[in-house]
Amino acid sequence: MNQNEKLVRELWKCFNEVRFEDAYPLLHDDFTAEWPQSGELFRGAKNFIETNRNYPGKFLIEVLKIRHAGETVISEVSIKPEGGTPLFAVSFYEFSGGKILKAVEYFPDTYPAPEWRAKWASKILS
Amino acid sequence: MNQNEKLVRELWKCFNEVRFEDAYPLLHDDFTAEWPQSGELFRGAKNFIETNRNYPGKFLIEVLKIRHAGETVISEVSIKPEGGTPLFAVSFYEFSGGKILKAVEYFPDTYPAPEWRAKWASKILS
Repeated sequence: MNQNEKLVRELWKCFNEVRFEDAYPLLHDDFTAEWPQSGELFRGAKNFIETNRNYPGKFLIEVLKIRHAGETVISEVSIKPEGGTPLFAVSFYEFSGGKILKAVEYFPDTYPAPEWRAKWASKILS
Repeated sequence: MNQNEKLVRELWKCFNEVRFEDAYPLLHDDFTAEWPQSGELFRGAKNFIETNRNYPGKFLIEVLKIRHAGETVISEVSIKPEGGTPLFAVSFYEFSGGKILKAVEYFPDTYPAPEWRAKWASKILS
């Protein structure tokens, strides 16, 4: 596992274990995060980590898959809120100087398979 | 642009231009698509293409970014429904024999930036 992948896994581990202070050293001084779904940009580790720290609810986080596209690391993550609807996070990370420099993150939620397309679909066996 | 990337761009172009018949030759005989959000699996080109053909509404589709993670091609796509809420597609494609063999697709939707985290966020300048 390369160093960049380790940083990404450690970031998700910190969030899963509610150890937000430990996430700070993983992030570059010029860190930014973009959440394209809401058009939000978080400049700096503090704004990003405080947003995550204050996200309502408790979550069980599991890294499903890590991919490498050149210098970019991509994580697919399962997020299960206590008593809420599970969702996914698909995140694209860039790096500089052994830290995470940038994250672009999507959070697709789960929903029941719609009836109109049931005739063409079966179920993913997980 | 490599052949796999061409296949992905052509698939989205077919969908954008409502030329569903032209999508068939891009897909492998053993093609499958997984939509993890709903747990749906589409086996074969027909089930996948008919689902897309029958998806309610008209859409303007734009490929925002293509990445390569080994043999996997990843597309980030903007989907703007006529008169509806825009969404994104983040899709992971695998290939065999010059065709698309597998797609795993997430469809994160857009939403207004929540007030509770406004103090930490600014706006993405696009």
